[in-house]
Amino acid sequence: MEGKIITVSREFGSGGRTIAKEIAKRLGIPYYDKEIIKEVAEKTGFNPEYVEEAGEHAPGKSLFSFGLGGSVGLSTSDFLWAMQRQVILEIAQKGPCVIVGRCADYILKDNPDAVHIFIHADMDFKIDRVVRLYGESEKKPEARINDKNKKRAVNYKHFTNREWGKSQNYHIALNSKALGIEKCIEAILAIVTE
Amino acid sequence: MEGKIITVSREFGSGGRTIAKEIAKRLGIPYYDKEIIKEVAEKTGFNPEYVEEAGEHAPGKSLFSFGLGGSVGLSTSDFLWAMQRQVILEIAQKGPCVIVGRCADYILKDNPDAVHIFIHADMDFKIDRVVRLYGESEKKPEARINDKNKKRAVNYKHFTNREWGKSQNYHIALNSKALGIEKCIEAILAIVTE
Repeated sequence: MEGKIITVSREFGSGGRTIAKEIAKRLGIPYYDKEIIKEVAEKTGFNPEYVEEAGEHAPGKSLFSFGLGGSVGLSTSDFLWAMQRQVILEIAQKGPCVIVGRCADYILKDNPDAVHIFIHADMDFKIDRVVRLYGESEKKPEARINDKNKKRAVNYKHFTNREWGKSQNYHIALNSKALGIEKCIEAILAIVTE
Repeated sequence: MEGKIITVSREFGSGGRTIAKEIAKRLGIPYYDKEIIKEVAEKTGFNPEYVEEAGEHAPGKSLFSFGLGGSVGLSTSDFLWAMQRQVILEIAQKGPCVIVGRCADYILKDNPDAVHIFIHADMDFKIDRVVRLYGESEKKPEARINDKNKKRAVNYKHFTNREWGKSQNYHIALNSKALGIEKCIEAILAIVTE
């Protein structure tokens, strides 16, 4: 496999981001996560928190619409999607990198240099990580995790018309609880490097 | 990962069976595929071809029902499912092995020694393999592949209430076109052996 543009989609709490970051570090290639949000914010003038929130939420859920050019209605989420897509395509043009989330697997599905990865885990593993890394919140961790992952799935479905987490959308899908974070990193590196 | 009971689910044409057979060979552990059909046929008295066909078809599609004990109706497919499940549980009791298809991932989902794998591929790769390995048929290869995989998905949904091919049902899911058959074998062996 020649591909060195690695997209990592992940369930909230699965450690997918940690895996992605470590892969970028070990391969010595750029890592894009919040950087995408920053670029979209700069391009659009929206504040980064809003871009971050909107980028993983289903459109129409918590976003208002605004009209562009009278009768032509472009929703904020569609506009942000278009901007985000453009930023991701530009990043991929620059060369090898790791891109986390934001439907990058779909946006780069026809890029022959891209390898698409999905990381998921059992609920107990996700709860443990979320509480440890993000602390407690009013909402029970399981509800928080389910809520977040459901939003990601709905958002993905809306913009890609595909099922989030379906094996066929990725080259490699791994369960980080069963394999362990380190083994996931090693397996992915073994596959993407000749 | 301690697991050495390896279940391999696969799209028709993806090379999943080849991968499964090779893993069993390299690990020196038994490989179960047609053997399950033979055992079910022996237990039930049905002929092996019928068991094979029924085991991957959605119930009610091409199967007739027969009554057991008057008003108690047990469909043939439900009866075969129960027998097949029993055979798979017995096989897993015996120790390390590779089991192909037949919802073994679901049947052994609570077995802590089991590793569940899903193999899929792009359509052009599947067409090439199917034509090369199974020859031409009246039906176009793409229709043949889609038909077979659809039946597997419907059968899986009926008996497990889960989505066939959903990453979360497996520990490892790989695209055999992108990675290549040999790389899939190596990656799986690297993960399942410490």
